[in-house]
Amino acid sequence: TIYVITPTYTRLVQKAELTRLSHTFLLVPQLHWIVVEDSPHKTSLVSDFLSHSGLAFTHLHVATPRERKLQEGDPNWLKPRGVEQRNEGLRWLRETNRNRAEDAVVYFADDDNTYSLQLFEEMRWTQRVSVWPVGLVGGMRYERPVVEQGRVVRFHTGWRPSRPFPLDMAGFAVSLRLVLVNPEARFDGDAPMGFLESSFLQSLVTMEELEPKADMCTKVLVWHTRTEKPKMKREEAMLKQGLGSDPAIEV
Amino acid sequence: TIYVITPTYTRLVQKAELTRLSHTFLLVPQLHWIVVEDSPHKTSLVSDFLSHSGLAFTHLHVATPRERKLQEGDPNWLKPRGVEQRNEGLRWLRETNRNRAEDAVVYFADDDNTYSLQLFEEMRWTQRVSVWPVGLVGGMRYERPVVEQGRVVRFHTGWRPSRPFPLDMAGFAVSLRLVLVNPEARFDGDAPMGFLESSFLQSLVTMEELEPKADMCTKVLVWHTRTEKPKMKREEAMLKQGLGSDPAIEV
Ligand SMILES: O=c1ccn([C@@H]2O[C@H](COP(=O)(O)OP(=O)(O)O)[C@@H](O)[C@H]2O)c(=O)[nH]1
Ligand SMILES: O=c1ccn([C@@H]2O[C@H](COP(=O)(O)OP(=O)(O)O)[C@@H](O)[C@H]2O)c(=O)[nH]1
Ligand SMILES: [Mn+2]
Ligand SMILES: [Mn+2]
Repeated sequence: TIYVITPTYTRLVQKAELTRLSHTFLLVPQLHWIVVEDSPHKTSLVSDFLSHSGLAFTHLHVATPRERKLQEGDPNWLKPRGVEQRNEGLRWLRETNRNRAEDAVVYFADDDNTYSLQLFEEMRWTQRVSVWPVGLVGGMRYERPVVEQGRVVRFHTGWRPSRPFPLDMAGFAVSLRLVLVNPEARFDGDAPMGFLESSFLQSLVTMEELEPKADMCTKVLVWHTRTEKPKMKREEAMLKQGLGSDPAIEV
Repeated sequence: TIYVITPTYTRLVQKAELTRLSHTFLLVPQLHWIVVEDSPHKTSLVSDFLSHSGLAFTHLHVATPRERKLQEGDPNWLKPRGVEQRNEGLRWLRETNRNRAEDAVVYFADDDNTYSLQLFEEMRWTQRVSVWPVGLVGGMRYERPVVEQGRVVRFHTGWRPSRPFPLDMAGFAVSLRLVLVNPEARFDGDAPMGFLESSFLQSLVTMEELEPKADMCTKVLVWHTRTEKPKMKREEAMLKQGLGSDPAIEV
């Protein structure tokens, strides 16, 4: 099984993002989707969406504490996003797998990225931690582990290559076994900018142990796409005239 | 068959967009994808992508004349996009169907929008022209035809509801038969802003004849999402140091 942990939060494009992501996942054999809402409760939008998705899923929720939450207007690198939600997914996996040692892989998939189908075939054979390039991330065409003689020796990145694991969240998968035998491994929301992935991976693996996938990290199979926030100017103007869109119609 | 005509053009997110779009289409029975590149030649990125996609497809190309093309920095409402490409798709359909009257539907699907699977089941039964709401478009939560007693009587839109067909490109499908019996129907790239869809639909149908789908146009099954243009600041800085990403690695 591939367990995919996806943090998600309420916003105008949420249902659209979950819709196209679910189509990718429907084409991946043996995938279990762990959707963790950044919310004090499960929303009906996500509940209804998941129950009609056709996917095997687990629906969780945990709200990011207010002081950790990015505020309107904050630059998006100020605070990491989805931290508590990924940790909640890990907590559920550990709880659920207390009494068995299932052969499975864990992947952290943000709801706005783009994933090829090939990516999942690459990660399926992870022993400990597998890695690959990520496109359109960090102000670069791609970031990637550089492989020499079958081993990762350094990282191609535009910023602080000396970080322990200068990898995007979308650039690695971990075996469930490794998650279970390291019950303390989690994402540290207080890690300095760019060190969130390292805070988790450091307790699991060394650079030398990383398993390079995607043709020795020479193929881009996942893209760090971001979706524009839709403008609502006319909606606001129409609302003032009593002509706004019907709030009962879900978007 | 549902013939989907998609204009597309070279940019950093192109392969990512085509990838997630292809996953949606892989889940739709009887779909034929007509991909029309805005380019003086077919690119190898799109050719290779399509041949590995697993979809039934036709690959065409036509370059937008330079004076019609949006320039860097132009506001994106200045000129319509994808016009010549959609017309090229229509030309191919008419040429290919010269000697038969296949029962089929034509839909114009931009490469950056988000499509539910249900949408395709709705449009499959189009007699002449079917219509439905589009989410996140025109500065509104959604735009939609308003239906009374089973007929479209007006349009919910934030701008010039008096246009002949104030519908987004993603909000209608046309029967192939209607396209074939109206050989002159095409998109007019010189139509004033917001009148591109009308320039095509006016020669095919009247408002009264429109077939409302998606539960009498009360469900949003397609979203006019847009993808952020990725920043390449660090890439440029790295390039200057001779440390740029390998151009041979396709993104
Ligand atoms: O307040 C927030 C903001 C984001 N996210 C989720 O966290 C992940 C990363 O967020 P985002 O894609 O906005 O980050 P970026 O693209 O800037 O890396 C995504 O799955 C989001 O849905 C969240 O749960 N709460
Ligand atoms: O120079 C261009 C710009 C856009 N497009 C295509 O035309 C369609 C509409 O463009 P876009 O999504 O940028 O328009 P908007 O989102 O602003 O409606 C999309 O399928 C694009 O790939 C194109 O062929 N050439
Ligand atoms: Mn993101
Ligand atoms: Mn678009």
